[in-house]
Amino acid sequence: MKNFTSVADVQNPIALINEAIALKKNSSAYSDLGKNKTIGLLFLNPSLRTRLSSQKAAQMLGMQVMVMNLDKEGWALEWNDRAVMNGNKTEHIKDAAMVLSSYFDIIGIRCFPTLTNREEDYSEHVLKQLIKYSTVPVISLESATLHPLQSLADCITIIEMSKSTKPKIVLTWAPHIKALPQAVSNSFCQWMKALGMNLTVTHPKGYELAPEFADGIPVEYNQQKALQDADFVYVKNWSAYEPYGQTPVVSEDWLLDEKKMHAANARFIMHCLPVRRNVELPDELLDGKRSLIRLQAENRLYSAAIVMKKLIENKAI
Amino acid sequence: MKNFTSVADVQNPIALINEAIALKKNSSAYSDLGKNKTIGLLFLNPSLRTRLSSQKAAQMLGMQVMVMNLDKEGWALEWNDRAVMNGNKTEHIKDAAMVLSSYFDIIGIRCFPTLTNREEDYSEHVLKQLIKYSTVPVISLESATLHPLQSLADCITIIEMSKSTKPKIVLTWAPHIKALPQAVSNSFCQWMKALGMNLTVTHPKGYELAPEFADGIPVEYNQQKALQDADFVYVKNWSAYEPYGQTPVVSEDWLLDEKKMHAANARFIMHCLPVRRNVELPDELLDGKRSLIRLQAENRLYSAAIVMKKLIENKAI
Amino acid sequence: MKNFTSVADVQNPIALINEAIALKKNSSAYSDLGKNKTIGLLFLNPSLRTRLSSQKAAQMLGMQVMVMNLDKEGWALEWNDRAVMNGNKTEHIKDAAMVLSSYFDIIGIRCFPTLTNREEDYSEHVLKQLIKYSTVPVISLESATLHPLQSLADCITIIEMSKSTKPKIVLTWAPHIKALPQAVSNSFCQWMKALGMNLTVTHPKGYELAPEFADGIPVEYNQQKALQDADFVYVKNWSAYEPYGQTPVVSEDWLLDEKKMHAANARFIMHCLPVRRNVELPDELLDGKRSLIRLQAENRLYSAAIVMKKLIENKAI
Repeated sequence: MKNFTSVADVQNPIALINEAIALKKNSSAYSDLGKNKTIGLLFLNPSLRTRLSSQKAAQMLGMQVMVMNLDKEGWALEWNDRAVMNGNKTEHIKDAAMVLSSYFDIIGIRCFPTLTNREEDYSEHVLKQLIKYSTVPVISLESATLHPLQSLADCITIIEMSKSTKPKIVLTWAPHIKALPQAVSNSFCQWMKALGMNLTVTHPKGYELAPEFADGIPVEYNQQKALQDADFVYVKNWSAYEPYGQTPVVSEDWLLDEKKMHAANARFIMHCLPVRRNVELPDELLDGKRSLIRLQAENRLYSAAIVMKKLIENKAI
Repeated sequence: MKNFTSVADVQNPIALINEAIALKKNSSAYSDLGKNKTIGLLFLNPSLRTRLSSQKAAQMLGMQVMVMNLDKEGWALEWNDRAVMNGNKTEHIKDAAMVLSSYFDIIGIRCFPTLTNREEDYSEHVLKQLIKYSTVPVISLESATLHPLQSLADCITIIEMSKSTKPKIVLTWAPHIKALPQAVSNSFCQWMKALGMNLTVTHPKGYELAPEFADGIPVEYNQQKALQDADFVYVKNWSAYEPYGQTPVVSEDWLLDEKKMHAANARFIMHCLPVRRNVELPDELLDGKRSLIRLQAENRLYSAAIVMKKLIENKAI
Repeated sequence: MKNFTSVADVQNPIALINEAIALKKNSSAYSDLGKNKTIGLLFLNPSLRTRLSSQKAAQMLGMQVMVMNLDKEGWALEWNDRAVMNGNKTEHIKDAAMVLSSYFDIIGIRCFPTLTNREEDYSEHVLKQLIKYSTVPVISLESATLHPLQSLADCITIIEMSKSTKPKIVLTWAPHIKALPQAVSNSFCQWMKALGMNLTVTHPKGYELAPEFADGIPVEYNQQKALQDADFVYVKNWSAYEPYGQTPVVSEDWLLDEKKMHAANARFIMHCLPVRRNVELPDELLDGKRSLIRLQAENRLYSAAIVMKKLIENKAI
């Protein structure tokens, strides 16, 4: 069974990116491809871009789409095997997945982490259970630890905007007021590694990323130094991996601004959105010429569409 | 006006089942039938299978579909005629039904019972008021006392899987931790009677089903005895009809298992889902070869589709 | 950029009404017009008629439709520029609008007033911010101060039902139990003025409408006198403009009935719905021959469709 839950599910990431770029240039060419196919987009968490871009991508391919806020509009789900369901959970994922597989040709699911139980989150328990019991392909619409459709869109954006074949890319931690998942950052690291990109990560001490995904990527704790001559600066907050889900106090100023970008001779800024303006990134950068956020959001359409296209065609992703 | 709210609305139940089985074998043949028709699926309660299978069935017939969580996304509804609406209800069903009838060619509604007011529930006040004020056909997506689309799917499943023309069918009460509606059980009884099936009901004393639907069906209070040589064992919890909505304590063990099924030489188990695993039915039965739950869920598509097809064609159901 | 937020956005209101009436007679003629176009319908508040009629109108024109309960299913939005987003708002409208504009060809939004901050409400802060940051046309699905799609449907209804070229129209305040927006009443006044209609407003002292919209329209504080020989009586509750959002006690009886209508030789009653029966209007009028509420609701389809048609065709509205 083919699924799309991480770059590890992709046979040839650079080929996939190039196919997405080709699709973007010819997006109306496949409007009959998904005829008589139905995709179910299931949400356990809020979503704007993913919800809408996935719908639109499916429609671009001629598929029927059903969107469901799974546990609000359906039944509270039990995710653990062999559970004696005498609590507040009404339906087991085993049964729900079987039913969904009867009605859908592809299932997309968004399932955020708890940020309280690292073992459970990093085992991707929820996503894995859905996949275990589904008989159709599953697409991650952001799971506990990864957000591959976002990363694919980010890669498309970098390839589109890069002047050189080996751009310098920096992933920088940014301030925030609450604990956020590590999924976007983990996923970005994973894709950059798969593509052999020149990535440096910069963050305050205590915010080291999960070794599962960041191992081997150089870390530079001095943000200004990390930014030097960067072509792409990916800005993102995340909570600590250890102690898990915590947000150790950071006394230095990690908020980027034009001055820092200019001083470092750095070029573009990227953010997956939603962004807390003037907390994670200032208006001047988000709204200025360095900003690629619009292009990233637009590329979510083609990131989703190329993955769905492969699954409809039953080809390796 | 044709509606589909119970087997009483069906002219020839066995013919309808056979037409559903024929449709299942040729499900792409009617993709233009509902062109320019729109169905509105309205939910006052949670739904997974019904929500999704009804959407998919409508799309199978080429209809437009709109799904709405009626009182959460719209206005709180007043269901009583001549009400002075100075409380917390914002819109009268009389007006809502009129509006819905202007926009939809068929209306589906899910409206669970209160389980506190038997007279109101068994009068199907909500469903009846919708029908009274609608000018288009209404399909029950499970009402206070009946779930006819589920029963139709169950009948399709039994016909498909039955070796004999007169299989032995048992409806058995199962344990649960909270008070559930009687709709699925009532409806199953009603359809079995209409089809002249050989049905026995088994349940603890105090859990007698509504005479409106179960009259004339033999009751065997000894579960093991009831199961003997059963071809189909339909498992379902329900709360008491008298005292209404209560759950009198049951000290005996009513949870089925492989051992009991084997001892009774019983064959298939059925359940409408959602099922509380290891409370209503054990994993070993739900996941074993006796289980028809997957087929039942799949047949929800054709149960919904055949009913919609009849209504689109403006034929007797 | 063309938007539809008030009659002020309409070049020729009477021509638009006539085109809507023509479209109504030939509603299947444009089922390919919106091919490959997508409309996003975004709701910050409850909606029945607007939600469903807008969907259906878009489908009538062959558009893809996505409906979203914007801040419940997406992220809590910040509407103020230059905000330091360190509170409970997760995404800025600037970014959301940019993303929505990437995915949609037309955006519809419903954004009710606070009824606590008149300056903010009457500046249409939310709607204006969306428009400011969108790069595609925006349709108001009822904003803080206006409900132009409703008014357009009301005008269609009046033109369809009017015997004379200059019917007498009365907008009367009606009792209610809570503070309601002024949007429907403001909007009705604005359209009547734009059409040069013969409108009188009647309401208790203290319920004067916003001068922005009602200036120049005669007010008659005696309801019975106002009703005399009226062809159309538009019934609506609204809260006070000054003190804003308050509901000063009204001791007189403002609830219309058949007797009053008859005594005044008045003809039709109109209401935008939802209506609190027997509080705002009695059953006898809502259900009687004078009632145009069904026609108004039906005309919502053509009101929405004609506006979308103009925007798809990129023509002046």
